[in-house]
Amino acid sequence: MNSTVGDYLLARLHEAGIDNLFGVPGDYNLQFLDSVLAHPSVAWVGCTNELNAAYAADGYARCRGAGALLTTFGVGELSAINGTAGSFAEYVPVIHIVGAPPLQAQREGQLLHHSFGDGDFQRFLRMQKEVTIDQAMLTADQPCMEIDRVIITALRARRPVCLVVPCDIAALPAALPDEPMNGHRDSCPRSLEAFRVAASELLRGATRVALLADFLAGRFGAGDVLARWVEEQPLAFSTLLMGKGILPEQHPRFAGTYAGAASDAVTRRAIEQAEVLILAGTLFSDTLTAGFSQQIDRKRTIEIQPCSCRVGDETFSGITFVDAVTVLRQLTVRLTLSDPLDSYHQPDVVPDACVLSQLQLWRAMQNFIRPGDIILADQGTAAFGAASLRLPPGCRLLVQPLWGSIGYTLPAAFGAQTALPHQRIILLIGDGSAQLTIQEISSMMRDGQRPVIFILNNGGYTVERAIHGPQQRYNDIAAWNWTGLPAAFSLSPMVQSWRVNEHAQLEEVMGLVNQQSQMTLVEVCLPQQDLPPLLQAVSAALHRNAAF
Amino acid sequence: MNSTVGDYLLARLHEAGIDNLFGVPGDYNLQFLDSVLAHPSVAWVGCTNELNAAYAADGYARCRGAGALLTTFGVGELSAINGTAGSFAEYVPVIHIVGAPPLQAQREGQLLHHSFGDGDFQRFLRMQKEVTIDQAMLTADQPCMEIDRVIITALRARRPVCLVVPCDIAALPAALPDEPMNGHRDSCPRSLEAFRVAASELLRGATRVALLADFLAGRFGAGDVLARWVEEQPLAFSTLLMGKGILPEQHPRFAGTYAGAASDAVTRRAIEQAEVLILAGTLFSDTLTAGFSQQIDRKRTIEIQPCSCRVGDETFSGITFVDAVTVLRQLTVRLTLSDPLDSYHQPDVVPDACVLSQLQLWRAMQNFIRPGDIILADQGTAAFGAASLRLPPGCRLLVQPLWGSIGYTLPAAFGAQTALPHQRIILLIGDGSAQLTIQEISSMMRDGQRPVIFILNNGGYTVERAIHGPQQRYNDIAAWNWTGLPAAFSLSPMVQSWRVNEHAQLEEVMGLVNQQSQMTLVEVCLPQQDLPPLLQAVSAALHRNAAF
Repeated sequence: MNSTVGDYLLARLHEAGIDNLFGVPGDYNLQFLDSVLAHPSVAWVGCTNELNAAYAADGYARCRGAGALLTTFGVGELSAINGTAGSFAEYVPVIHIVGAPPLQAQREGQLLHHSFGDGDFQRFLRMQKEVTIDQAMLTADQPCMEIDRVIITALRARRPVCLVVPCDIAALPAALPDEPMNGHRDSCPRSLEAFRVAASELLRGATRVALLADFLAGRFGAGDVLARWVEEQPLAFSTLLMGKGILPEQHPRFAGTYAGAASDAVTRRAIEQAEVLILAGTLFSDTLTAGFSQQIDRKRTIEIQPCSCRVGDETFSGITFVDAVTVLRQLTVRLTLSDPLDSYHQPDVVPDACVLSQLQLWRAMQNFIRPGDIILADQGTAAFGAASLRLPPGCRLLVQPLWGSIGYTLPAAFGAQTALPHQRIILLIGDGSAQLTIQEISSMMRDGQRPVIFILNNGGYTVERAIHGPQQRYNDIAAWNWTGLPAAFSLSPMVQSWRVNEHAQLEEVMGLVNQQSQMTLVEVCLPQQDLPPLLQAVSAALHRNAAF
Repeated sequence: MNSTVGDYLLARLHEAGIDNLFGVPGDYNLQFLDSVLAHPSVAWVGCTNELNAAYAADGYARCRGAGALLTTFGVGELSAINGTAGSFAEYVPVIHIVGAPPLQAQREGQLLHHSFGDGDFQRFLRMQKEVTIDQAMLTADQPCMEIDRVIITALRARRPVCLVVPCDIAALPAALPDEPMNGHRDSCPRSLEAFRVAASELLRGATRVALLADFLAGRFGAGDVLARWVEEQPLAFSTLLMGKGILPEQHPRFAGTYAGAASDAVTRRAIEQAEVLILAGTLFSDTLTAGFSQQIDRKRTIEIQPCSCRVGDETFSGITFVDAVTVLRQLTVRLTLSDPLDSYHQPDVVPDACVLSQLQLWRAMQNFIRPGDIILADQGTAAFGAASLRLPPGCRLLVQPLWGSIGYTLPAAFGAQTALPHQRIILLIGDGSAQLTIQEISSMMRDGQRPVIFILNNGGYTVERAIHGPQQRYNDIAAWNWTGLPAAFSLSPMVQSWRVNEHAQLEEVMGLVNQQSQMTLVEVCLPQQDLPPLLQAVSAALHRNAAF
């Protein structure tokens, strides 16, 4: 069989490390789906709807480095577009492939379904431009070059792209690629040297240097070099919530998770009072800094970002993330650093009451998690609670606090488990959030996945209650029979379900779950107004800022 | 208490006939929600997610004339945007209110959650421009005038609009409106007279005149005048699928539902061979015309559209829909029209086999439906099957064949039942479609609604199988325990559930359902490859056109 443009695209996806394509079939992508089913390496993963598919592709990409999504034109791509926006905000490279009407029908302006009937077939591409870093509508004119351009951009920028593939173009003959895509970029040697000189100057004589890393360090491949650096040099180190898991949290010099004024006092001192602070891929957004309450002296910081570095007020561009970290690592070897002033301990927990509290939940969770677990915590009490965890080695935490689209983590957990079938996935999600995207647990069951799902049932949108209207009816939701869901979403559910009200029950269930490997759903009943401590601090700070 | 901009907006919604506001709470709309809960006439209706809320508002608007939706900035509005796009494509006026960050924070370009952190707070409004007829981001400068402008445009154009309301602006003091909004427009008298003369000329001496009406006639308020016209004059009349229910289908001159070459022979003759054909609000899209197979002679048609009329090749603008219909009605009184050549009978059905078929389902459905029922049929076998129904008086059919977003009708049924609490809602939806939006049945149960829901379970996306890949795995879906869903989505489900495999079972269940008024879910098991006759004809035509 001769290969097509569709086959070419699949070869490039595979080359980018993408072996699973998430999505929903639709009229304009069915022929391309024939190519997918016939492909030896890229498997089709049907999802229950397009937004869930976009979330799943994002979760997959966070674990694998890149992901892909297939929808149909108009209806499908717009249903998915909030998922793509989340990938854009949080630097996740997802290739969104949109199956479109034949180019000839578009050019004739035919009154086709999935359009507005106005002959404008560029409309949705214009919308895609707002949420992707690059886009192309393929034509017969060099479609393979366009595919390469767009995919390389996604991989370089770590951001989503959109490839609109008219169904007649997907079927055009095309030779499979014979050379690998080349998206590699080196640092500019002069820029790198100038950065080294400036950084060396600022670091001269410093004895207390701290490192605050965040998610962009992970996205741009600097996680390993940072982790080696903090092992070998006596730096105090910390991350923000989004970067949790990049650095070894059980190391004695780990200073806790930084959250501006809502941080533990030790964390704050280690970061804000360092003589020189190194920022690696940080993003100080409102909810992660308790309302921009970080106290960081710009003159005493060296900042590494994907596109540039900064020393004090001076900026240097054209330096790769890994090269910048490597330079700083070499410079600190020459320094005589002292150990941090004091070490971080997880806050003590008040003695148990019978009814489960957020505090108890997170202490129990700390004992439950194991090295290598992939933890997803939905925006809300789950993410703010997970911020307090001290992650075991090899653990990753997937959160989405900048974009903050509730419900994201449930399909993302499906994507993450597809990406890493042999690692344990732990999903922590509130009841309000889980209602948005619940049907994707049927895909987990269909595919025989075995995640451990904790539904934090506190009777509605508790994170919103913390912000405004604690008793208002709009923060209530319909009460569901959570433990009954697996049996409704599958004809042969291989799932154990539990509902726990008490601390002892939770501990018992966690013990049972740790003894086996089976898909598990635990409904954890929590008080409606109870908040993890970090969320208390953050919402108090946001109120003070009158941001709400 | 002094009134605010938010209160002003609510007063205008109420004036537009909107008594229910659908949506999902979020950080930037909570204070406005306080105004909603305090409002005497506009009630809050929380939904499980934003896309479902948009669909519900659309279903509500189709029943009430207008609807409204409230989401938060970024995440919420983008999740809903495919619903808004459907409202745009199909001329449904929905006011989408987006709660946004305070204007001051926007102007400072703060790194806020639900943004991309790049200080661009106009990005999502630019996307809204592609799917709404008008938009505004409210500021302190005349916010009430902007509210009026945008709502009047929505009501006039019967299309969705977007109002972005920064939370500080919603809280500004504002007097409640003391004059009604004035969106009324008269026809231009000279244009109307010219249209009358041209139409009179074309109609002169005609004895067989036919009327083909479609959904835009209903949207622009001409349903009643059209229905009176066909009662008093011997016109053959028909609608396309989207317009079903506008004209009395049990009338002897009803010629069946027109679908181009896929129409019944009688329907085709009545429409295509009329001496003069009057088109009222028609839109000939691909799937509704079996691939543009309508045979309509432009020279012998008079066409009424929302913004203009046409007689042969001559166009007249500035004429309201109702005025245009009224002119034609007066002109036909002077003609001596003959009765149509032959009358339409519903096709006979083959004798029963034991296993349920699509043919049997639709015959049973014809007997089940009652005057006044509101029927929603999802895109797929449901809508193409419903096209064959001869609707009893007062029935309405809600379909979305132009935009064609599967899953739409389930939340739309929730919205329709909210709009018309005393009418029976019948939802017809395939299993593949229902998976996209299933969680909204929990809102129906929470609110004590009593729709009758038929899940047409044919093991996947049968409408896609008809187009391409009948046996391909991508058209399969996860198998669900459909009748177990109500007990999972509510702690006190007042729902009867049935699963039927045989014709006799379906008839028996329909008999039981007609004797009571209770929420009902019927899983109707159908053969995977079985199609309603219209869909067979349409997909054959689409294949011939090689559109797929």
